[in-house]
Amino acid sequence: MSGTVVMKFGGTSVADAQRIRRAAQRIVAKREEGHRVVAVLSARGKTTDELIRAAQEISDSPDPREMDMLLSTGERQSCALCAMAINDLGHRAISLTGSQAGIVTDTSHTKARILEVRADRIHDGLDADAIVLVAGFQGVSTARDVTTLGRGGSDTTAVALAAAVDAELCEIYTDVAGVFTADPRMVPDARKLSTVSFEEMLEMSASGAGVLQLRAVEYARNHGVRIHCRSSFEDGAGTFVLTEEETMERPLVTAVTHSTDEARVTLTGLPDRPGIAGRVMTALAKANVNVDMIIQNEPQSEGQRADMSFTVPRDDIRGAHDALDPLVEELGIGAIASDPAMGKVSLVGAGMRSHPGVAAKAFSVLGAAGVNIEMISTSPIKISCVVREADVARAVRELHTAFELGADAVRREDVQGVHRPVVSS
Amino acid sequence: MSGTVVMKFGGTSVADAQRIRRAAQRIVAKREEGHRVVAVLSARGKTTDELIRAAQEISDSPDPREMDMLLSTGERQSCALCAMAINDLGHRAISLTGSQAGIVTDTSHTKARILEVRADRIHDGLDADAIVLVAGFQGVSTARDVTTLGRGGSDTTAVALAAAVDAELCEIYTDVAGVFTADPRMVPDARKLSTVSFEEMLEMSASGAGVLQLRAVEYARNHGVRIHCRSSFEDGAGTFVLTEEETMERPLVTAVTHSTDEARVTLTGLPDRPGIAGRVMTALAKANVNVDMIIQNEPQSEGQRADMSFTVPRDDIRGAHDALDPLVEELGIGAIASDPAMGKVSLVGAGMRSHPGVAAKAFSVLGAAGVNIEMISTSPIKISCVVREADVARAVRELHTAFELGADAVRREDVQGVHRPVVSS
Repeated sequence: MSGTVVMKFGGTSVADAQRIRRAAQRIVAKREEGHRVVAVLSARGKTTDELIRAAQEISDSPDPREMDMLLSTGERQSCALCAMAINDLGHRAISLTGSQAGIVTDTSHTKARILEVRADRIHDGLDADAIVLVAGFQGVSTARDVTTLGRGGSDTTAVALAAAVDAELCEIYTDVAGVFTADPRMVPDARKLSTVSFEEMLEMSASGAGVLQLRAVEYARNHGVRIHCRSSFEDGAGTFVLTEEETMERPLVTAVTHSTDEARVTLTGLPDRPGIAGRVMTALAKANVNVDMIIQNEPQSEGQRADMSFTVPRDDIRGAHDALDPLVEELGIGAIASDPAMGKVSLVGAGMRSHPGVAAKAFSVLGAAGVNIEMISTSPIKISCVVREADVARAVRELHTAFELGADAVRREDVQGVHRPVVSS
Repeated sequence: MSGTVVMKFGGTSVADAQRIRRAAQRIVAKREEGHRVVAVLSARGKTTDELIRAAQEISDSPDPREMDMLLSTGERQSCALCAMAINDLGHRAISLTGSQAGIVTDTSHTKARILEVRADRIHDGLDADAIVLVAGFQGVSTARDVTTLGRGGSDTTAVALAAAVDAELCEIYTDVAGVFTADPRMVPDARKLSTVSFEEMLEMSASGAGVLQLRAVEYARNHGVRIHCRSSFEDGAGTFVLTEEETMERPLVTAVTHSTDEARVTLTGLPDRPGIAGRVMTALAKANVNVDMIIQNEPQSEGQRADMSFTVPRDDIRGAHDALDPLVEELGIGAIASDPAMGKVSLVGAGMRSHPGVAAKAFSVLGAAGVNIEMISTSPIKISCVVREADVARAVRELHTAFELGADAVRREDVQGVHRPVVSS
C-alpha cells in the first residue's frame, strides 16, 4: 500500500455529469494504484455564483452566517454526486461535509481561517478502505456554525487535509495544465514550468497567477505539503510546487505575472504631520480595502504639503473613497483622486536573490517598449511594476521575451528530465 | 410572552425571492405577536426534483447515503435565504440544519425515522430572542450521517419540533387554504373544513388527501400536537386538526377523498393450500411494493383453485411482477395479470362509527351513477371503493352531493363560529 494522496478538483472539473464521472475515474485510478485517496471538491461550475445571486435577490447585505450556510451547499452536492459515480465504478466512497471532516475554523463568516483539522472520520473512512470525498471551501466554527473559507478556499481545504493526514502529495486538478511562465492567453509561447518553489509560487499567486490560492500555498509551505498542479482534462505531469532545496537550480526569472484590475488612489496636499499616513491606512483597513503598493512623496521643504498614492483592487475604489472622504476635513487633506485603469506586471524568480541586475534590465525593457512605470515594489524574488492597464499585455510579452522564458528558449529540462528545474538563460 | 409556535412552509411557499420574503413577513408578524417562533422550511420549488435529476444523470441507482447528502442541501438553502430576509426586517434569525437542530434519526437513508429530538440549540436560539429556522425533511443518523425523512418529510419535521419544544400550535402553510370536503379541482363546491379530527385526517391522508403527510399526522396524534393547515398566500383561518374531543360534534361524513394512481394485480388459479397468500405478500414486501387492498375468492369446492386480487400504486406494477414471476412455477400459480387503470374513492367521517347506514348509501349512490365497485375496504370511520380510474371524478362528485358536503348545504359552523364542527346533515 502506497501513501495517502489528496486530490482537489475545481469547479470547472466537476461542472456537469460527464466531468464528475471523469473526476471519479481519476480518483478510482489513483486508488487502484494502491493509494489511500482523499478528494476535495469545489461546487459545480456556476453553482456558487447562482447561490450568491439568490442571496442578492433577497438582501443587499446578506447576513454572513447565513451566507455561509447557503454557499456551503454547493460543494456538498458535488461530493455526493461524485461519490455516487465512484460507487458505480465498484469502489466505496463516502462524502463528508467540511464539518464532518473535522475542519474547525474561527468564527469569521465568509472568510474563516482553519484552526485545526480533526481528521478522525477521514481516517475511519480510509481505514475502512473507502475513498473519502470532502466538501471544499468550508468548515465548522468553534461556535458550531457552518463557515466558509472565502473564494478559492477549496485549495486551502485540500492542503490542510494533506497536512492532517500526512499525505505524500496534494494534487490540484484545474482547467489549466500547470503553472506557466506567463498567462498563455496573453503570451502564446508561454511555457509550462515543471517545478516552482513555494516562495516563487507565493509571489506569483500574490501578483496575479490564478492557478493556486495564496493562502493554500502559504499553508503548504508552513506544513511541508508537496503540491502538484495539473490538468483534469489531459494526462501528463503539471507543475510541482516544492521546497527550494528540491527545485535545485533556479533560473534568474521564473515567470511573468500580471493583473489588470488595479486602481490608483491619490491623496494630494497632505499636511506634513506625523501619523497622517497611519490614519489613512487604518481607515482603509477598517473598511476592508486591500492596499497593495504605497508611495509617499516627501515635501521638498519645511511646511510644504505631501502627496500619497496607493493601489487597490478596482472593485474597492468606492470603498476607499467612502472610507477616506470623512477624513478630508479632519486631517486637512487637499484632494482625493482615483484612476481605475491601472494594471500590474511582475517578474518572479528565486534567482533574483543573487542577481541584482534583474530590476535594471526590466526597467530598460519596459522603457524601450514605451511603457511608463507608475509605481514599483520589490521583494528579494519579485519585481512589480504598476503600469497603465492598456500597457499590461505589451509589458508582459516584452519581459517574457527579454528574459527568454518562451518555448523557443534553450531549456535544460528537456535534457535533464521532467523533475529538474527550468533554466532559461 | 405567549407560547412557542412552529410554522412550516412548503416548497411552493418559498419558491422564489418574493415568496421567501412573504414567508419571512409572516414569521416576523408571528414573532411580533409575542410568540417564540420556530420555522421549518422545505426546499425551494423544484430544487429537490432538479437534484434528483442530477443524481440520475450520474447513476441509475444512486447510493442512498449520498442521495441524502445531496437532497438535504435544498432545505438548507431555503432556510439561509429566509434567515437573510428576516434579518433584513430587523429581527434576528438563525438557520439550523436538521443535524444542528438535533433531529436524530435511524440509519435508513432516504426514508429515515426520527428517534429523538435534542432541541438544545433551538432552545438556545429562542432564549437569545432569535427566530429559529430549521431545514425540514432531514436529520442526522445515529452513525452521524445526514439522513432524509422521505418525500413530504418536512411536515414530520415540523410536528416533531412542535412536540419537542412543547409548541402551542404547529402551523402548516401550503398552497391550499386548508382541508376540503373534496379536492376543489374536482368538485367546484367543495368546502373548507374548519376542524377535522386526527383520526379523520389520518384516514384522509392515507386515502389520497395530499395536504398533510400521513406520518406527520400520526406523530401529531401520538404527541398531542395541534396542527393548523393554512394558506401561505391568503390570510384567514384554515383547518385545525384536533383531538376528537376538541372537534365536538361530528358529521356523518366529513370528506370524500380519492386517488387516481392505483393498479390491480390479479393472481388466478392459486392452489388451495395454506401459506400461499403469505408467500405472495412476503415477496411483495421484500420488493418494497406497497399493497393496499386484498381480495381472495375462496374456492367453491374441495380441490378447486382460488383467485387473489390486490391493489398497488401504479408505479409499483413492474416491481410486483418482478417479485411474483419467480413464484409462478414454485407455487403453481395459474397466471398473473394486472390492470393499471384503477382509482379509489373514499368516504371519511368520525360520525360513521355510530351510523352503519353510510356504506349502504354510498354503494347505492355509486350504483345509481353506473360506477362499478371493484373492491371495498372499510374502517370504523372510512369506506374505500376501488373503481375504474375513468369513474373516479364522477364517483367523487356524486358522493359529495349525496352526502350534502357542498357549500350549498346547511352549515352550522356559520352560526356557531369558526372553531365549531362542520355538520352537513
